[in-house]
Amino acid sequence: MIYFDHAASTPLHPLALKQYCESLATDFANPSSAHRLGRSLNKRVEEVRHLFLETVAAREVDYDFIFTASATEANNTIVRWIVGGSEGKNDGRIYYSCGDHPSITESIARWGGSNNGRCVEGGGKLDDLLDDLLDGLRAVFLIQVNNSSGVISDVEKIASKIKNFCPDIYVHVDAAQSFCKIPLSLRKAEIDSVTISAQKCGGPKGVAGLYLKKKRVSTFSPLLVGGGQEHALRASTVNAPAIFAWGAAVSALGSVSELEQNYRYVTRLNDLLRAQLSAKVPVVQFPFYSCSPYILLIIAPKVASDILVRHLEEREIYVASSAACSSRVKGENKTFSAMGIANSLHKHVLRLSFSPSNTEAEILEFVKNFADIYHQLLEFT
Amino acid sequence: MIYFDHAASTPLHPLALKQYCESLATDFANPSSAHRLGRSLNKRVEEVRHLFLETVAAREVDYDFIFTASATEANNTIVRWIVGGSEGKNDGRIYYSCGDHPSITESIARWGGSNNGRCVEGGGKLDDLLDDLLDGLRAVFLIQVNNSSGVISDVEKIASKIKNFCPDIYVHVDAAQSFCKIPLSLRKAEIDSVTISAQKCGGPKGVAGLYLKKKRVSTFSPLLVGGGQEHALRASTVNAPAIFAWGAAVSALGSVSELEQNYRYVTRLNDLLRAQLSAKVPVVQFPFYSCSPYILLIIAPKVASDILVRHLEEREIYVASSAACSSRVKGENKTFSAMGIANSLHKHVLRLSFSPSNTEAEILEFVKNFADIYHQLLEFT
Repeated sequence: MIYFDHAASTPLHPLALKQYCESLATDFANPSSAHRLGRSLNKRVEEVRHLFLETVAAREVDYDFIFTASATEANNTIVRWIVGGSEGKNDGRIYYSCGDHPSITESIARWGGSNNGRCVEGGGKLDDLLDDLLDGLRAVFLIQVNNSSGVISDVEKIASKIKNFCPDIYVHVDAAQSFCKIPLSLRKAEIDSVTISAQKCGGPKGVAGLYLKKKRVSTFSPLLVGGGQEHALRASTVNAPAIFAWGAAVSALGSVSELEQNYRYVTRLNDLLRAQLSAKVPVVQFPFYSCSPYILLIIAPKVASDILVRHLEEREIYVASSAACSSRVKGENKTFSAMGIANSLHKHVLRLSFSPSNTEAEILEFVKNFADIYHQLLEFT
Repeated sequence: MIYFDHAASTPLHPLALKQYCESLATDFANPSSAHRLGRSLNKRVEEVRHLFLETVAAREVDYDFIFTASATEANNTIVRWIVGGSEGKNDGRIYYSCGDHPSITESIARWGGSNNGRCVEGGGKLDDLLDDLLDGLRAVFLIQVNNSSGVISDVEKIASKIKNFCPDIYVHVDAAQSFCKIPLSLRKAEIDSVTISAQKCGGPKGVAGLYLKKKRVSTFSPLLVGGGQEHALRASTVNAPAIFAWGAAVSALGSVSELEQNYRYVTRLNDLLRAQLSAKVPVVQFPFYSCSPYILLIIAPKVASDILVRHLEEREIYVASSAACSSRVKGENKTFSAMGIANSLHKHVLRLSFSPSNTEAEILEFVKNFADIYHQLLEFT
């Protein structure tokens, strides 16, 4: 099997799998229980929380970190609080990219009212547009790596620029696709909140997280209430086994050296794939640059990507025709439109996404099979 | 170890543990992915969804079932929709018990506005009070088994009475503590929604569920948005491995015969404990009747329950002094007050909760140790 859909979901890191199965068998108590079993689990959860703060150089005086059940929940929490008005201020504009993850765009559409949201076109990059946008800005939603295109935004630089202009402007970063893959530092404490996801970086489904600047906590409005868990910022039973498993993955993947080594390795895979594919199927386009090496969007003209996905899967090769969360959307893909891909090409897009567990042999095997299938299918068009 | 805190969280059923660890290793894809790995997971998720509908005799024409990440999320979803006004109607009163789980009471307090919620005192039972409450009623929140007291409400009977009076009144049932333990049938389709929890019945933390009457779906407002998962009723990546694990537990525990057999067995444990404890420590009180045998609240006068918990844990015996979600609340316990326990006794309450995996030998061992510790501590008071 060749699996190039790691941006949709990636296998558990072996250490995370081992930790999870051990923990599921033994760490069954409720970390909020007052007895020793509960207290001991709670202590270990706090240790993992500390690890997550350390991983992005966030000082405990600046940031809290809360575990959520999904990146969608983390993003929704911030949108509903900041945009949905529970923060108490509804004046000022919200800027975000229409190509952002739907847990940002759809929640802003739903809770943002009709007037205060402004969606910026352009492949997930607010960088260049930002100078024109600062005036009247109340909050900005950034995505460090766009889940559809792979485009990287320099969120630290953008946050600095915004905070220089006005420190009150709220800056949220969705780092679900980039955590443990692209460096992120919260040392300067200019970003107000950051969403991360376990299932995109070797952790299990069912757990994710939210960094939250402590200065903002006094006005924070939890999405889930009823129980004092997560420092009273998020209710519901603490999922200790999943947290421990994710902690094991981040211990293995989150260090600067490991991150850089994996980045270089995946860059080599990505470069190899593009070079080989350009040679064998020159008509294939790579519409984006400044991308994370972990995600490669390609356009294969004339052949529908759904058909390609089906033919590839017959050979046990798995790729995506869009992000999983919009895989059932028919017709125009709004994310692709926002990213500047012409409507006529939407049904020719494939998203390949990698992990350090992929190999050069898999890349070569993929290109061979892709070229084979593509040329066969071309004959029928 | 003797673990009598199963209402806080209970070990995974052996079949659930086996299924979960297998699934974590192999079912890593995203069930929303369009390729075969995704489609195959999605199909299996739909099969488990069907199992959950069957387990409570809910017809697919009447009910949908959605997987959430926690019972707190499921309860919050209904409160925020029905009480928080996103349903569009804010007239009429909301009735609930002040002794309900905080994911109900706190969320109503937060989103219910100041005028339309009415909290009913009395141990989690609305049954007897209901006749006086029907007039002007818009929605009622019931708890089938109160998590603190164990008191059972006949939710099917109450729902019938309410729907007889006016079919529009919304009826929600929190069955987090009772699913697979106390019979519940949705065959008559009088209950509008039901919350259930995996981690209270042999499934893992990180997954729970919500039955939702299809007639109500047209006005439904999801708590989490951004992705068409769960029939477009709840966004975020579908946690397939956790769902499969919970499905394995419910296959084993959810049948009528298994449920009845476990009920009889746990009733015997509960009866034995009360008889033995009354004989050895006659001063201990059992303040509630009409209770689930799975939960036994006791009051041990003169000795603080926190001290008892600590001494018991020294002997590897684990019980709760309150529900885990309010274990860090100091002073008056609002839930206990609502249940009619005098303030002076709040710090003498212990909650014991059982599972079919407990044994008569553990009951006898517990009573022996409890009597021993209690009499020792009495000498210091």
